[in-house]
This record gives sequence, structure tokens and C-alpha cells, in this order.
Amino acid sequence: MKKQFRLLEKINEPTDLRRLNAAELPLLAKEIRRKILQTVAKNGGHLGSSLGAVELIIALHRVFETPKDSILFDVGHQAYAHKLLTGRYSNFDTLRCGGGLSGFPRPAESPHDAFVAGHASNAISAALGIREAQYHQKQDGNVVAVVGDGSLTGGLAYEGLNMAGALPRGLIVILNDNGMFIDPTVGAMSRWLTTKLNKDSYYLVKKHVKGFLRLCPHGDEVAKLIHHAAGSSKAFFTPGILFAALGFRYLGPLDGHNIAEMEEMFRSVKERNLAEPVLIHVKTCKGRGYALAEEDPVTYHGVAPFDSLRGANYVEPQSEEKTPTYTAVFGQAMLKLGAEERRLIAITAAMKSGTGLSEFAARYPERFYDVGIAEEHAVTFAAGLAKGGMRPVVAIYSTFLQRSIDQIIHDVALPNLPVILAIDRAGLVGADGATHQGAFDIAMLRYIPNMVLMAPASDAELMAMFESALKWEKPVAIRYPRGKIYHDPAGLKEPLVFGKARIVSAGARSDVLLISYGHVFEEALKTRAILQESGIGCTLVDARFAKPLDGELLASLVVRHKLVVTIEEGAKIGGFGSAVAEFLASAALLKPLLICGLPDSFIAHDDVSAERRKCGLTGEQVAEEILRKWSIL
Amino acid sequence: MKKQFRLLEKINEPTDLRRLNAAELPLLAKEIRRKILQTVAKNGGHLGSSLGAVELIIALHRVFETPKDSILFDVGHQAYAHKLLTGRYSNFDTLRCGGGLSGFPRPAESPHDAFVAGHASNAISAALGIREAQYHQKQDGNVVAVVGDGSLTGGLAYEGLNMAGALPRGLIVILNDNGMFIDPTVGAMSRWLTTKLNKDSYYLVKKHVKGFLRLCPHGDEVAKLIHHAAGSSKAFFTPGILFAALGFRYLGPLDGHNIAEMEEMFRSVKERNLAEPVLIHVKTCKGRGYALAEEDPVTYHGVAPFDSLRGANYVEPQSEEKTPTYTAVFGQAMLKLGAEERRLIAITAAMKSGTGLSEFAARYPERFYDVGIAEEHAVTFAAGLAKGGMRPVVAIYSTFLQRSIDQIIHDVALPNLPVILAIDRAGLVGADGATHQGAFDIAMLRYIPNMVLMAPASDAELMAMFESALKWEKPVAIRYPRGKIYHDPAGLKEPLVFGKARIVSAGARSDVLLISYGHVFEEALKTRAILQESGIGCTLVDARFAKPLDGELLASLVVRHKLVVTIEEGAKIGGFGSAVAEFLASAALLKPLLICGLPDSFIAHDDVSAERRKCGLTGEQVAEEILRKWSIL
Repeated sequence: MKKQFRLLEKINEPTDLRRLNAAELPLLAKEIRRKILQTVAKNGGHLGSSLGAVELIIALHRVFETPKDSILFDVGHQAYAHKLLTGRYSNFDTLRCGGGLSGFPRPAESPHDAFVAGHASNAISAALGIREAQYHQKQDGNVVAVVGDGSLTGGLAYEGLNMAGALPRGLIVILNDNGMFIDPTVGAMSRWLTTKLNKDSYYLVKKHVKGFLRLCPHGDEVAKLIHHAAGSSKAFFTPGILFAALGFRYLGPLDGHNIAEMEEMFRSVKERNLAEPVLIHVKTCKGRGYALAEEDPVTYHGVAPFDSLRGANYVEPQSEEKTPTYTAVFGQAMLKLGAEERRLIAITAAMKSGTGLSEFAARYPERFYDVGIAEEHAVTFAAGLAKGGMRPVVAIYSTFLQRSIDQIIHDVALPNLPVILAIDRAGLVGADGATHQGAFDIAMLRYIPNMVLMAPASDAELMAMFESALKWEKPVAIRYPRGKIYHDPAGLKEPLVFGKARIVSAGARSDVLLISYGHVFEEALKTRAILQESGIGCTLVDARFAKPLDGELLASLVVRHKLVVTIEEGAKIGGFGSAVAEFLASAALLKPLLICGLPDSFIAHDDVSAERRKCGLTGEQVAEEILRKWSIL
Repeated sequence: MKKQFRLLEKINEPTDLRRLNAAELPLLAKEIRRKILQTVAKNGGHLGSSLGAVELIIALHRVFETPKDSILFDVGHQAYAHKLLTGRYSNFDTLRCGGGLSGFPRPAESPHDAFVAGHASNAISAALGIREAQYHQKQDGNVVAVVGDGSLTGGLAYEGLNMAGALPRGLIVILNDNGMFIDPTVGAMSRWLTTKLNKDSYYLVKKHVKGFLRLCPHGDEVAKLIHHAAGSSKAFFTPGILFAALGFRYLGPLDGHNIAEMEEMFRSVKERNLAEPVLIHVKTCKGRGYALAEEDPVTYHGVAPFDSLRGANYVEPQSEEKTPTYTAVFGQAMLKLGAEERRLIAITAAMKSGTGLSEFAARYPERFYDVGIAEEHAVTFAAGLAKGGMRPVVAIYSTFLQRSIDQIIHDVALPNLPVILAIDRAGLVGADGATHQGAFDIAMLRYIPNMVLMAPASDAELMAMFESALKWEKPVAIRYPRGKIYHDPAGLKEPLVFGKARIVSAGARSDVLLISYGHVFEEALKTRAILQESGIGCTLVDARFAKPLDGELLASLVVRHKLVVTIEEGAKIGGFGSAVAEFLASAALLKPLLICGLPDSFIAHDDVSAERRKCGLTGEQVAEEILRKWSIL
């Protein structure tokens, strides 16, 4: 067992790697893969892309000397090998665990992590900034952005390329092209990368070359030769011409599993010290070295802990039926509504499986769009569909919704178009950590005129909210978290009415008014129980809406209670509690208000329940805080 | 006089245009130009791009039949001729006036305006959505996106192109290429469009063609021929290859002032009913037909009312020296700080002159970056610069800041990098109207951990805020409006201290605590005067910070007053007043609170003071509201 990582355990920093001889590297790659697989099987994590980038990262660290040179990963979940080679082998077992290593590059964790890398498509822009800072300060050092092909569907990546292509600096972009990102990459760029010479491009070459040759001496003759030659060769029309058009010197494609070939190229680029940006195209295989992941890259993109021999899809025969998740119930709602409403359209930004839309996509392929990592476009495209009479639902993670705020304001809310935002992973997300927490969506949407904001407290409410939202001719956002959904055995109880909250139970005495927004309802139930045990009367309200707020109900209840408490799994600042505070002020209802929600800080990775505890948001903690407040009232 | 618009006044709808014979069109174009020039000289507006697009818009409406066909303008300020030809000639004089026509396409204004078009780069995505909606509903109709070359620097446009290029639909994109957008367009794409065959592309052609030919029979021979030929022709390497690479059929370039040529092309594309996206490249001249605007397109992009004979730069000799604007004082601050701090960098997204950075750019060209219409990239690029040790200031309009929220959260605030956001046009913006109001920036930034939010009440404070922000190693946002700055004759009075507000004056009696955030300070002074006249004591506080809030000072003052009032020119929901409401709740300070700010609606165009009046935010209106509230306390 001790010898299992003979080479890897000797590498405390990249200089150790550079001392190995080339013949040892294949074994090192094997050890890295084994370590990644072991760790991810135990802790969960992003397996496929990290397995695919092992040789690439070895070659990078053989040539470039971090932290003097900067390597930026885009997106960061390809970087596990980088962590292993930069002094984090010994605590790699803590990957994605509370207090342990982050699943993404994190400058606070290591000087070898040049930039934060949780959201895709930012590396070229950031790398360009770092490169320019060197230029201004007359510092040496190479800056390398390692960009997955999926990240290239994001507009930000293009904005970065566009500027980099016009600056005379030696920025190095490495396109880590594994042909798919999370779900298979979509769009023209992807087609372009995967098809060397399709009919269209052949047509184009012919047209352009011919047009050109018509103007040349001997043009006809050349055209004829090319026409024949093109049939026998597919090499002419490479992706290079596209990047070159954007001002990059294009090199490649290279075999991303051939360390020697990559090392040679990287070294040559480094030594030539070019005053122009370079794009090196590297082809890798997602999941490389683990057969199950190579065959099923979607499943193994990001996985929960699993048995590495049996695979991530293996379910213990004796295990209980899994309680359905919010995501799964959303998927069922979409199937049901898709059958009833022919105008319903589902849109995802590269998260088909993650947002629970796989079945909808299979059943209604014509009404399903995966636009790639392009959240801005997803929303404006939806706005166009709505303008044209359809009923689009954009299913998006809360953290990625941040990318499309302008489009929600300008293209959806201003013209008041009926676009539904299905906001998944709202609230705490667990092991993905600070870059991925769904903390801000309530605060981010609440100030937008015309928006309706809802959050379900149970499976029945989630279903009712989507059914209702489809009928309102307005923009609607519905937020729900990752993880198991609360099944209310009594079903919906009260029908969902626009802008109306629901009294779950009136307190025996009118002491505390506890208003819960969304899935923290389960915690609120615990809080109520504790308060009741402590002899404090608690009226529990399921708010359902953060906007419009049910002012009528609130006003009538607030005057009868001594303390108002709000609870939400979202940022306290600007969120649901803030809405209640504004309402109490505007209605001149002078009652003490306790706002319980996420603190004003970025919340590090851990499991969801531990994160919730750190935020003081468990039902028990909320009850304690209420009791403290109550004692000094 | 009556005959001045002989043709134009006969056109009540596009069908009237289609009845004209071709020989009449040049005169029509002339009349349209005259009408645009007259109106913009009187009302202000976007002159250059609208003058440049006259023939293009005539040709479009000769061929495409709105509203059955959809024409989307990107960005909408090129569309004045479209308004004149779609039934809005008779009230065109009301352009950008309160209650009159909007300066941008506005579906609520006319069925001929297919989509909202205030922010750049959204048309391709929206058009694709409209096209897909037709497809699902089996409707006919062409969908045309008219996109300026400047809009192509925005990542959203690329995201749209990338998806459109992969869908088998006959979407028509017209590239209205005038070689510059607001300030001259930047980036590789622009260079690409303007340079037919530069050294790089020649190199590229050679390299690729050679690589290809090496594999061909007779390859060497052909290569030699091409090598010679390339020297004698520049035609081979057109922009077409780039768009074709993205899956578009490329047509053009056409002369954008030759109506017949464009009509023919549009008709041919329309009739062929292609099942693939088409990009038609049209070259136009910004400011066409008005010599002053052709020569100085930056000045005439967007202008205040001016004398069309003397030009927009003409200043009445007897006019008083203009009171400086916030923008101008920011420009001066940057010049001063640029001299003192060599690490200071200025970044704009295509708004060099608009944000007051022209002088800085001239004096420190190396430390100035115009990244084009690419707000996401602007912020992440700044984050990279900050990571590399520089001190970047991103000068950006509040409304366009909406584009970069994710980058501010993920790339700046999470790693706590010292990036300064200089938020211009914060608050009401006047004639640009609903799409451009700077209403949301406070609410949009306030919930972001690590952010510091400030707003100056005077010229001295603005200067002090930038000086201080440069010293703090944190992300800082400073908001200020368009228009004249308040000159405090007493200067700064109290030094700016992190997180500290300033008591401007204590009330004779402790009645009303009036807390002002930012430039509405001038209104707050009026409010104070009126309250004092009414015998109500008013303590006036200049908050300076929205985050961190000066809780200490607030707490000490709140307990001594009977009514707390906040005033800000930003959305009431989630804004500064909301922060105070949250604070009062958390500190258990049960005092009545009146929040004065912008309402929960999109605010239509008018002049700024009229807009402010409609929002109830003049000093007099705030005083009235306080008196009403006071009377029922």
C-alpha cells in the first residue's frame, strides 16, 4: 500500500516534478489518476475533466514555473492534478470536505492557484489582466490560461479573446478540447471544433478560394488542383483559422495525452517569448484512464461518492428508494406541463442533467434547448421566445443566474415578458463551496420591477407554483435548493393564490410570528416545535412569495404578535427579511424583527448541513436566537 | 416650409414606402436625414448612427413587411429612420421628450418595434427566440437582426451567433458596419472588419494553405502560384470566413448607402427562404450626410441639443462657464491620482468620453484601456490587473454595470481584490429613459460580501472618495449621477473616514432624522429648509457609505429622534433605505422609518428633473411626505 504513490508522494512542489526523467512520467500520470479516482469516489467531485487533464497539467508544470508563471484554469474543476503537483498531495484526502481543500483553484489556498475559477469563461480576461500588470511593472513570467472547450461558449471568453487578440502581448491560451464540457457542448463553435471539414466549411473554402483565385494569374488551374485535392484531404480547414482571425497565433492540435509532444510545444512557445497571443489546441479525452467515465462522461462530470469498481450509477439493492429531490420534482413538473401546454419550452445553459431536464429533453426534443455555458443568451433567447408567443422556462443554478441579471432586467422584466426562471441550487450547495453558493438570487431579483418571486416549501407547492406561473403573463422566478424535497403528506392544503402567503398554524398565544420563505420551512417546523416546548406561542407562516409580499396578511398578523422572525436560506442583506423590514417601515408597524438568513460573507465548502449550522440557520439555532431575543424584549 | 418633407409626410406606414418608385428614394433619404438632424439638434439624441443607417432602413422596409416580419435593432439608437417610416413622423418632434417617442425601439410604442433595444448585443439572441417561436407555431415571417459592429464586441452577441450558427433556421443578421460604435471600436474583431488583409492574416493564409497543399498532389506548384498571387490580391481573406466559421452564410460586403444594391440582396435572401442563418455585411458611414458628424463621430454619437449650423461643440461666447459635472470631476480626480499613483489603471467599456476619461487616456495612454462593449470582460480584466498588483478603476454607467454582476461577485469580491467601480449615470438619466436609468446599482451591489459602497454629496467628497478608495485594499463602488455636481463652498469639512457618515447639521429639536445618500443631498437641503420653516427640527446626515453603514452614528441619532427618513436616487427596494430598515430591525430600534427613493417600476424618459418629480423625489415632495407622516405620528 505504501508504494502505491511512489512518485507522487515525492513531489512536494513542481520543482520535484521537473527533476523526474521523462520515462517516469507515465507512471506518475497513473498514480495521479489513481489518487484522483480514490479521492473522488470517497468525497465526490469532478472526475471526468480532471482525469482528462492529467498529462496536460504534468506538461504545464514541467515547463512553466508557478507561482512566478501563472496558470489559470477555466473552469477550475479540471485542476485536481494541479493540486496534487503543487504541494497538496498530503491533504488531498480532504478535497471538498469542510476545512479541507477546495474543489476549485483558490488563491487563498496556494500561491500556485493564480485566480479564482468556479464559474466558467473568466480565465482569458483574468489572465490578460495579470499579463498587463506584469507589463506595467516590467515583470517577467508567463501567463497561461487553460480553457475547456465548453468554456468557449461563454460570451465572456469571447470578450477576452477579442481584446487579447488585439494586444501585442505573449499571452498563452491552451484550449483543452475534450469535445464536451458538462453536458455535450453545443453551438457552432463546438461543431467547428469537432468537425474538421463538414459540408458547409467545404463549401466555404471552395467559394472563398475560388473567389480569390479568379483574381490570380493561373487561377483556374490552381482552382482545379485544389478542387481535386480538397476531396483527398481534410486538413486545410482547421479551427486555427478562426482563432487566427481573432488575432491569435494558432498551434496544434496536439495529443493531450502525449506529455513529450506538449512539453516540447510549451517550451518552444515559452522560449520564443512572443509578443503576440498564442492559442495551443490540445485534444484530450474526458474521463481518460477510467473506462466507466470515458464511456459516460455526463455521469462522471460531477459525482457524489461512489464505488469505483461498481460505478456511480450503481445503487445498493437493499437501499431504500431515494427521497426525490427538488430538481427531480421540477423535472416531473416540466413533463406534466409539457404535455398540457404545447407552448412550454425548456432552456438550460449546459446543465441538462443537473437541472433535471433530461427526461423532458428526451420526450420533447423540439421544445428543449441547451444553449451551452451562455446564461446571458439563455435569458434573452427566452425573452424572444416569449415575445413570439411561447412560454419558456429557463432552468438555471442560482449562482449562474448572476450572469444574466442585465438580460432579466432589460430583455424580460422591462417588456414584462412571461419568462419563468427555475432557479435550482438556491441556498447552500455543499461541497462546491464559495463560488457556487446560491446565496444572492432573492436580493438580486427583488428590486426588479414586474418580477414575481416565489419559493416552495414542499413538493406540492413546487408543482403548484410552476402550474400557476405558466398562467400569469409575467416574469416569474421560482427558487429551490439542491437536495431532498420536503414531502407534505397533506398535499397543497390551500390553493396557491397570486401574492398570498399561507398561515401554517396559529400560535396558542400570540408571541412569535415566524415567517418562512422556501425550503427552510423544514427548519422552521423545528423552530416552532422548540418554541412551543418553551411555552412560547408561535404562529408559522409559509410566505410562498417574496414579491409581491402578502402585506395584508402580514399587517394583520404583525399587530397581534410581539416578535416577528423571518427565515430564508439566502443573503440576509436585501433578501426576504429585508422585504419584510421595508414593509414594516412603510406600514409603520413598529414591531421587533429578527431576520435569519445567510451572513454577509462567502461561505466555504462543507456538507450542506454543516454549512447551515455555520450560518446559524438550523431550526434549533433559530429557536435559540429567538429565545435570546425574547428574553430581552 | 410645407414642402420640406414632401415624401416623408406621405408615409404613414411602410406600405406607403413600398409604393414609392426607386427614383424617389434618394430624396426620401435626404428628407429623413433633414428631419433627424432638425429633431436631434432640438431635442438631443443619437445622431451619427441614425444618419448612417437611413438607406439601410429604407431598403429593409422596402423588402421586409413589419410587423409580420420582425426587425430588431442592436443597439436601438440607429433606428430613428425606422421610427419615421413606421407611422411616427407626425410626432417625431417629441423624440426623447416626456410623454413623447422613446429614443430607442419600444414594442409598447409600436408593433413595428419587435424588441426592446437599449443595451447593446441582445438582438441576435432575441431574434433567434422570435424565429424559434415562429418555427414552433408554424408561422411565416422573416426575422432580421440589424447589429452594429460595436455590438459585436459584446459576449452576448457572440453567444447568440454561436447558437444561431448551429440551428437550421433562416435567421437574417445584418452587420451594420460603420467602423466605430460610440468611441472607435476596439478588439480583434474590429481590426478584422476594418483590415481586409493585414500581415497576420496574410501569414495565416500562407501557413494554412501551404500546410494544406503539402498534402496535395501538385501541392508545391500550387503553393508557388498562390504565393505570387497573394501579393497581387487582397481579396481572399474576407471577414466572411469568420462568420462562416460560426455557421453563417456570409454575404457582402455591400454599400450601405446604395438602396438598390441592398434591396436586391435582401429580396434575394427573403425569396430563397433559406434554412440556415445568413449574415449580410453592410458598410455604412456614421454621420452620413452631415459633414460635422462624419468628421467627428464621437461627438455626434449622442448629443445634447445644439445649433446644427454651428455644431455640437459650439459654445455661446456670452454663456457662463459651465458648472462642472460629476463626470468631469471624476475625470479630474483620475488625472490627479494618475500622477500620484503609478499603479492606477482606467478601464472603460466603449465609453471613454462619456465617463470623462478622454484626458486621462491622452495623458496616460498606456494605463488606459477601452475594452469595447464588454462589461463582463472589463471587470474580470480589472480583477486580473488587481491580482497582478495594479489599481484598476472601471468607469461604467450604472445601467451597464448590470452586465457584470457575476464578475463583480466571483472575480472581484470573492478574492477581495482592490478594484474600484466608478459608477456614472447612477440615478435618473433623463432622455435615454427606461432602458438606461441607473436605478438598481445600490440594491445590486449591497448584498455582495466585501464590497464597500459610497456616494458623494459634493465635488469635494467625490475627490476624497476616490483618493481613499485607492488606499483601501478592497473592492469599492462609488456612484454618482449625470449632470452638474454640487459644489460645497466649504470643501470637505470633515475628512472621509471608512464607514463613517457625517452630521451636516443637528436639528434645533430632535424631530426628524434625515439621512441622505449621494447626490440627492441637494434635494435633502431643500427638504431640511422646508421642515425648519414648518417648525420641525431636522437633523441632516450625509451618509457617505451605504456599506458598511455607520451603525454607531445611526443608533445614537435614531434614539433621539421621532422619525427617521432616508433619501436616495435609487430603487427603494433593496437600496440604502432598505439597509437602514435592516439595521433598525437588527438593533431593535423601533422608530418609524420613511424610505424615499425610486419606485418599483421602470421610469420612462423625460428630463431628469421631471423624472425626479414623477418619482416624488424632489426636496419639496419629500418634505410634503414627511409632513404627512409627521401629522399622523
